[in-house]
Amino acid sequence: MDKVLKIGIIGCGAIGKDHCRRIIETVPGATVVAVSDYVAAAADETAAKYGIKSYGNDCDGMIKDPEVEAVVITSIDPTHHDYVMKTLAEEKWCFCEKPLSQNAKDCEEIIRREQEIGKRLVQVGFMRHYDRGYAEMKRIIASGELGKPLIIKACHRNVSQGPGFKTENGVTNVAIHELDICRWLLDDEYEDVQCVKVRQSSNSDKGYDNPQVMLMRTKKGCFIDVEVQVADGYGYDIQCEVVCENGTVKLPDPYAVVCRSRPAGWDSVKPAESMPIMTDWKERFIEAYDIEFCKWVESVHAGKLTGPSSWDGYVACVAGDALNASRGTSQFLKVETMEKPEMYK
Amino acid sequence: MDKVLKIGIIGCGAIGKDHCRRIIETVPGATVVAVSDYVAAAADETAAKYGIKSYGNDCDGMIKDPEVEAVVITSIDPTHHDYVMKTLAEEKWCFCEKPLSQNAKDCEEIIRREQEIGKRLVQVGFMRHYDRGYAEMKRIIASGELGKPLIIKACHRNVSQGPGFKTENGVTNVAIHELDICRWLLDDEYEDVQCVKVRQSSNSDKGYDNPQVMLMRTKKGCFIDVEVQVADGYGYDIQCEVVCENGTVKLPDPYAVVCRSRPAGWDSVKPAESMPIMTDWKERFIEAYDIEFCKWVESVHAGKLTGPSSWDGYVACVAGDALNASRGTSQFLKVETMEKPEMYK
Amino acid sequence: MDKVLKIGIIGCGAIGKDHCRRIIETVPGATVVAVSDYVAAAADETAAKYGIKSYGNDCDGMIKDPEVEAVVITSIDPTHHDYVMKTLAEEKWCFCEKPLSQNAKDCEEIIRREQEIGKRLVQVGFMRHYDRGYAEMKRIIASGELGKPLIIKACHRNVSQGPGFKTENGVTNVAIHELDICRWLLDDEYEDVQCVKVRQSSNSDKGYDNPQVMLMRTKKGCFIDVEVQVADGYGYDIQCEVVCENGTVKLPDPYAVVCRSRPAGWDSVKPAESMPIMTDWKERFIEAYDIEFCKWVESVHAGKLTGPSSWDGYVACVAGDALNASRGTSQFLKVETMEKPEMYK
Amino acid sequence: MDKVLKIGIIGCGAIGKDHCRRIIETVPGATVVAVSDYVAAAADETAAKYGIKSYGNDCDGMIKDPEVEAVVITSIDPTHHDYVMKTLAEEKWCFCEKPLSQNAKDCEEIIRREQEIGKRLVQVGFMRHYDRGYAEMKRIIASGELGKPLIIKACHRNVSQGPGFKTENGVTNVAIHELDICRWLLDDEYEDVQCVKVRQSSNSDKGYDNPQVMLMRTKKGCFIDVEVQVADGYGYDIQCEVVCENGTVKLPDPYAVVCRSRPAGWDSVKPAESMPIMTDWKERFIEAYDIEFCKWVESVHAGKLTGPSSWDGYVACVAGDALNASRGTSQFLKVETMEKPEMYK
Repeated sequence: MDKVLKIGIIGCGAIGKDHCRRIIETVPGATVVAVSDYVAAAADETAAKYGIKSYGNDCDGMIKDPEVEAVVITSIDPTHHDYVMKTLAEEKWCFCEKPLSQNAKDCEEIIRREQEIGKRLVQVGFMRHYDRGYAEMKRIIASGELGKPLIIKACHRNVSQGPGFKTENGVTNVAIHELDICRWLLDDEYEDVQCVKVRQSSNSDKGYDNPQVMLMRTKKGCFIDVEVQVADGYGYDIQCEVVCENGTVKLPDPYAVVCRSRPAGWDSVKPAESMPIMTDWKERFIEAYDIEFCKWVESVHAGKLTGPSSWDGYVACVAGDALNASRGTSQFLKVETMEKPEMYK
Repeated sequence: MDKVLKIGIIGCGAIGKDHCRRIIETVPGATVVAVSDYVAAAADETAAKYGIKSYGNDCDGMIKDPEVEAVVITSIDPTHHDYVMKTLAEEKWCFCEKPLSQNAKDCEEIIRREQEIGKRLVQVGFMRHYDRGYAEMKRIIASGELGKPLIIKACHRNVSQGPGFKTENGVTNVAIHELDICRWLLDDEYEDVQCVKVRQSSNSDKGYDNPQVMLMRTKKGCFIDVEVQVADGYGYDIQCEVVCENGTVKLPDPYAVVCRSRPAGWDSVKPAESMPIMTDWKERFIEAYDIEFCKWVESVHAGKLTGPSSWDGYVACVAGDALNASRGTSQFLKVETMEKPEMYK
Repeated sequence: MDKVLKIGIIGCGAIGKDHCRRIIETVPGATVVAVSDYVAAAADETAAKYGIKSYGNDCDGMIKDPEVEAVVITSIDPTHHDYVMKTLAEEKWCFCEKPLSQNAKDCEEIIRREQEIGKRLVQVGFMRHYDRGYAEMKRIIASGELGKPLIIKACHRNVSQGPGFKTENGVTNVAIHELDICRWLLDDEYEDVQCVKVRQSSNSDKGYDNPQVMLMRTKKGCFIDVEVQVADGYGYDIQCEVVCENGTVKLPDPYAVVCRSRPAGWDSVKPAESMPIMTDWKERFIEAYDIEFCKWVESVHAGKLTGPSSWDGYVACVAGDALNASRGTSQFLKVETMEKPEMYK
Repeated sequence: MDKVLKIGIIGCGAIGKDHCRRIIETVPGATVVAVSDYVAAAADETAAKYGIKSYGNDCDGMIKDPEVEAVVITSIDPTHHDYVMKTLAEEKWCFCEKPLSQNAKDCEEIIRREQEIGKRLVQVGFMRHYDRGYAEMKRIIASGELGKPLIIKACHRNVSQGPGFKTENGVTNVAIHELDICRWLLDDEYEDVQCVKVRQSSNSDKGYDNPQVMLMRTKKGCFIDVEVQVADGYGYDIQCEVVCENGTVKLPDPYAVVCRSRPAGWDSVKPAESMPIMTDWKERFIEAYDIEFCKWVESVHAGKLTGPSSWDGYVACVAGDALNASRGTSQFLKVETMEKPEMYK
C-alpha cells in the first residue's frame, strides 16, 4: 500500500486528539498532515506532539491546503455542516463526526452538493457499524436464520451530562446512534416516531427530561423502543436486542472479568457474581473506532466510500427532528424525507 | 393445623387436574372433597382417581354442597363470572383462575357483591406473585435500593395457540399476566394504554395478530412495554426488567444446566454455550403454583385473604379492554376504573 | 393413595424439625406420628407443635413402637450407625441423613444386616440426587449426547463452621456430598484418591485446613477435582461441571434476579451486573429435599427403595477415609471396598 | 515518535505473515524491512506483497543485515533457540514466539548470553499478558481486594491437531501458555508438578494422550489444575478462574452475540439461549497480539524490555519438562530451575 492518505483534522478536543493518534499510529495507508481548532492553542499543542503542521484556528485555510486530501471533522456539533460544505467545495474526502448537521435542511444541502459532484465524498462517524457485536447481529438478521426482524428493544444509558445539555440533545446527541443503527440493522426506513414522556429520575433534576422513551415504526412495520437515560445512576450501558420471527439476537456486554465475592469491608453488601459495567463511553466502542478508520481509509484508496453516508446522517436527523417535535403530543409523527438519491442505494 | 379446608373444584381439564393433585398431595391444611366439570366424565375420572365425590356436570350443585367450604374455578374462561357469583351467593371462599371475567362490567358485579358481603372472598389465580423471581423484584423495588421504578420492559412469548384463538386473546388471556404483575411490581395504577400494530410474523398466518406490542403508562408516569408473541418459533419465554433511577432488576431465567458443545451430528451448527429454554408453560411457574395454594389456604384459615383480589382481576380486565379498544388507533386510551373500595386498599 | 406411612423422627434439631414439617405438610402418603431427641425437651416441643407423640429422649422406644413404620434419623452424626442398626433390628424402613456412619466398618455392618434381611430398607439423605440441575446433568451424561464423561470439576464452598470443626470434617461432612454425587453422575466407582495440601486462607486460622483440594480417579479413568472451602469469605457456593468427549455440562446457579447498578451509597464500588449468591446452605437445595421425601415415601409404598442406598453411604465413607488417610502423603491411595452385593446393583 | 524500529522476520507462515501485516499496518514506531523463511519462496512472496527485502532462506544473513535492528522469530519451534542465539550474537533486539527453546538447557544458554551482554534483549511471545481479561485478573489479584490467591482452575481446549502431534506437545505447545500465565497471575514460582493420566476421549485415537490433566503447586502453596484437550469435539475454549481468600475471578468469554432460538430446520434440537464458541485459535487473542507488539516496540524505543523475558520462557520449559517426566508416575516432581538472575527480578 504505497499511497498514504494525507488528512487534516478540524477540532483538537478529546475525540479529535484521539482520532489524530489513531490515524498516525494505527491506521495503515493514512497519516495526519495538519490540524486546526477554533482555539488555536489546542491545534498548536496537538501539532507539536506529532511534528505536523498547525493551522491554528484557520480551519478554512487548512481545508484548502493542497496537501490535505481528506478532512476529519471533530469540532463542536453546530460547526459540522459548514465544514462539510467547505470540504465539498474543494471536492475532498470528508469524515464528519455525528451529527452531520443540526437539522434536516442542512443535511439536504450536503446531499444535493454530493449529487452535483456526482460522487459520495462524505462519511459520517457512526462507528457502531464497525463494532463486532452489531456487525454480527446484522449478519444474523440478513442471513434470515432467525426469520424476519420484527422488533428492536434498545437502551442507551449515560452516567451524566455536561452543562448546557437540553432535552432535545437526548435525541440529537444521544439516541442518534440508535436512530442510525436500528435502520442499518433492519435495512429499513422509518415510517413514524413518537417520543413518550415517562416518569422522571431524580438523578437529573436539571431542566432536561431523563429518561425519555423513543418509539419508532419502520416502513416494513418493525417496532423499535429505545430507552434513553442521560443520568442513570450507575454506568454507561448500551443494549440492543432484535426480536425476529424465530428467535432473538442481542448485543453482548463488553469483555469483562466475572467475580464471585462480597465487596471487601462492606458487610451489608450481599455476596454476588458480578461483572463490571463501564462508566466511560470512550472505552465502549474503542475497537470499533479503530476499524472504522481503517475501513474508511481503505475505501478512500479504492475510490468508493462504503461506510455511513450523508444520507444516513440525514435520515438520523430527520427522525430525530420528528421525535423532538412529537414530544408531548402522544402521537406518532411521520418521518418525511426527500427521495433517496440513487447514489445512496 | 387441625383444620382442613374442604375444597370443591369446577373444571377437570389440565390445570384443574393439576390443582386437584396439588391440593390433595402437597398443600397442608386443605383437601379436595368434590369435583365437577361440564363434561361429566372428566369429573368422574378425577374423582375416581382420588376416591372423592364427583358431581358430574352439576357444578351448581357442588357449589351448594354444605361440605364444600371453598370453590376452585378452573373451567373455561367464559364461565368464570357465573361460578364466582354462585360461590359468592353461598358466601364461600372462591379461588378463580384468571381471567376473573370476560369484561369489566362482570368484574364490577363481583366487586359489588363482595362489598355487600363486607369481606374479600375471592382470590384470582395470578400465580406470578408467588414466583421467587418476581417476589424478589418487588422486594428490591419497594426497598428503594435502586431508587424509584421508571420503566418496565417485558415480553411474553408462547410457542403456539389452539384453535379459536383471536387477536383479542393476546391481551385477555396472554398479556393479562403482565397487566397484573406490572402494577403489582410498581404498586401503581394504569393511566392509559395503547396496543401497537407491528410487523407480523409468518409463524402465525392464522387470522390473529402476532406479535403485538402493548404500551401502558401509570398514574406515577411509569412506562411499560410488553411484547406479546403467541407463536414465537422457539419456546415459552417470559422476561421482565424494571428500570429504576439507579439501576435495573431483571427476572431470572429458569434454573437450567448450561452446556458448551456442538449439537451432535449437525456439523453445520456452530459450537455454543447454551442454556435450554422451556417450551411448556406449565413448567415455568410450577413452584409458584405450589406456593400460591399453600398461601391461599393459610390465609383462608386466618380468615383474611392476602393474594390477588377481585379488584386485581377487575383492573387487569379494564386495562385489557382498553388495550383491545386502542388497537389500530395509534392513541393512548384512558384506563377508567370505578373508585377503589376501601376493602382492597 | 389411601395408605399413609407412619414415621417416627429421631433428632429435633434444625434439619429434623424441617423434615417433620415437610413430611406432615407437603409429602403425600406420609405423616409423622412420633418424635424423639437426646434432649427430651426438643422432642416435646416439636411433638406439641404438631399434636403428635413425643418419646422424649427414648429414641430406642420410639423405634420399637409398633405404630412407627419408618424411622427418619436426623440426630448428630456419631449416633447414626446405632439408630440405623436398631431400626434394622425391627426390620423397619429407615431414612438416615448423611453420613451413614462414622467409618467404613460401621457401614459394612449395616450392609451385612440388609443382606441378612434380604431387602433394602435404608436410604441415605443424599438429597442432591433430587436437585433438578444434577438430575438433568445425569440425564445428559447418560444419554451420551455429549459423549463419555471424562473429568469433573467441582467446588463446595461454605461461609463458616461451628466450633469443634476439624480438618477431617472437610471430607466427611462437607465433601461427602461430592463423593456421592460424582460417582452417581458418572455411574462409576473410585479407583484412588488424594487430598492435596494447598495454600491456606487467612479466613480460617482456627486449627483446620481450608481450603482443601480432593482428587479422585475412577475405575473408568475419570478424573475429579473437588475444591472444598469451609470459610470462603463470601457465600455458599456449589459448582459442578462435567467435561465429556464432545462438550461440557454445568450445574446452574440458583434462580436469582439480576441487577445492573452501583450499590447505593458506596461510590467506590464499581457499577456491575450482579446476581446474588446464597449464604445459607439450607436454601440451596430446598426443593430437592421436598422431592427426596416424596420419592422416598412413594418407593416405600411400592415396597422397593430407589434412592441412595447404604452401599452409596458406605462408598462415600470409604472414599472419605482414604482421602483423610492420604493427606500429607502426595500419593493417590486406593479406595478399597468390599464386593458390591447384588442387592445394590 | 520519529524513530522507526526496523524489523526482520524469520518465518513467513501463518503467524509470521500476520505479524508482518500487524507491524507494517498497525504498530506505531516500527516497520518490517526484511523477511526470510526456510522456504525461500514464502519469504519472497511476503516481501513482494509489502515491497520489502527478501532474504529468501538466508535467515542468518538477514539477522546480520545492519539495517535490521530487531528480529522477530516465527519459524518452526525447533529452530527458535538457534535464531535467538544468532540474534544475540549481533546484540540485536529479539522477539521470539513461544516456546523459547525445545528444552531447559537451551533456554539456560540464552539466559547466560543475556547475562554476558548485561541487558535483556529477548522477549517471548506470551501474548496473553496483553489480553484485557487476564490483565484485569492480574490487577485484581495484585490489588488484594479478593485476598491472597489460593487456587487456579484452567482449561485449554482445542478442536484438533495437525499430523505429527505427540503427547508431550500437549505440554510444550499447548499448556505452555498456562504454565506461563499462571505464575504471572500469581507472581509466584512452581514448586512441583504432576501430569495425571485420565480417561481418554475417542475423539483422539491417534497415538497421543487427550485429555491430560496437569497439576502444579507453587512455592507459596497455590494449587493449579489445568485441563488440556487437543481434540475436544466442539471448539477452541480457554478458561481460567482464580480462587482467592474472599472470592473468585474468572476470565471472560469472548465478546459474542447471544441468541434465543431453536436452530432452523432441526426440530429435534431444543430451543436455547446460546452464545457461540470460537473454533479458530487465531481469533481468540487477536487484540492481545496487537497490544503485545505495540508495547514491545514502545519498550524497545525506551531501551528497556518489559514483556515476558527469556526467564519466563525458561521457567515454562522447565515446568513443562517436569510435567512430561512425571507422566505415569502418579508423583509430583520438583521444578528445579537455576537461580534467578537479578536482571529478571
